[in-house]
Amino acid sequence: MTSKFSPGVPVPVALNHASRLVNHGPTVLISTVHGGRRNVMAAAWSMPVEFTPPRIAVVIDKRTWTCELALASGMLAINLPCKRQADICYAVGNSSGRDLPENTDKFAEFGIGSFEGPELKLPLVADCVGWMECRLLREPHIEKTYDTFFVEVVSALSDPRVFAGGRWNFTDSNTDLHTLHHLGGGVFGVPSVLVKASSGN
Amino acid sequence: MTSKFSPGVPVPVALNHASRLVNHGPTVLISTVHGGRRNVMAAAWSMPVEFTPPRIAVVIDKRTWTCELALASGMLAINLPCKRQADICYAVGNSSGRDLPENTDKFAEFGIGSFEGPELKLPLVADCVGWMECRLLREPHIEKTYDTFFVEVVSALSDPRVFAGGRWNFTDSNTDLHTLHHLGGGVFGVPSVLVKASSGN
Repeated sequence: MTSKFSPGVPVPVALNHASRLVNHGPTVLISTVHGGRRNVMAAAWSMPVEFTPPRIAVVIDKRTWTCELALASGMLAINLPCKRQADICYAVGNSSGRDLPENTDKFAEFGIGSFEGPELKLPLVADCVGWMECRLLREPHIEKTYDTFFVEVVSALSDPRVFAGGRWNFTDSNTDLHTLHHLGGGVFGVPSVLVKASSGN
Repeated sequence: MTSKFSPGVPVPVALNHASRLVNHGPTVLISTVHGGRRNVMAAAWSMPVEFTPPRIAVVIDKRTWTCELALASGMLAINLPCKRQADICYAVGNSSGRDLPENTDKFAEFGIGSFEGPELKLPLVADCVGWMECRLLREPHIEKTYDTFFVEVVSALSDPRVFAGGRWNFTDSNTDLHTLHHLGGGVFGVPSVLVKASSGN
């Protein structure tokens, strides 16, 4: 794992807290591996559908290399990129790993570090702030009709500087680690401003 | 329609731009009406699944009054609340309209203004910054298994002060109109900080 940033040390997230990693609608990176070939792409469209067991829906265009690898392996990883990764996030969302020679991949092409997931050995994206290894829950009709894939999270990690105890902790001192929310055309909103409902806890 | 804020004047959004209203993962308010009874609730979990035709997936607990009204009428509205509505957003997410007498509803209970949608006559939430009237695309197995409902947008509106030409326009001069992203426990992140990928357009 190489990094030009101060790397976080990923720590486990309790599985019943995993859905909270994407509760607020961040853009995610989907990473996959099958038969020795890896890929990573950006996905603006994902959401939790359940807390326990932690299940997530994600939209993946059927024509993508990511979709092919995910279907072949039955698994994918959801990585939570942060503000300092906007360039990477946009770049991997606008190129296909299918077009690359067999001896390379988008990780190598874009200089993206990776490490192995604890349960499924999926390639996780270095310098992200949250990671989930997931197994596909096959729903062929929905996959075909809406490009929507349901997955169940089997391991979750976070950078504890910004997500700990099941909560995001966005402060003025860790703004580089806040999540990205794609507004379109490579512009991301970063939820660094917080507002608390008067009846919240 | 009553408001303690400076109200926006909703303008139509082209249907092929509708999914962009929720591309960045905001918390939404779901409003419904059937047989003369109306309801409104918050939903943290929604995502686009297609741009054209504009289709969205949203998670609605099967036990809710909202779910009952949406299934009975075959439609629902997705409203985009903004920063100044954090209190309302959290309040309607933590109470049920089913428990109220027939002659009232959560709009009245919480002092929430409304206006009628242009296509389906759904009650739209005043002071929001985006609105979509939607028809349910029934997928009973997925509704039952994942509480996930697919809908197609048939009309879309926005407050042009913050969404125009198919794009969100979050600036320092309209921060009260920025969207809410629920981090948990009544705390919302507001994406007022922007970052642009170097290869974006």
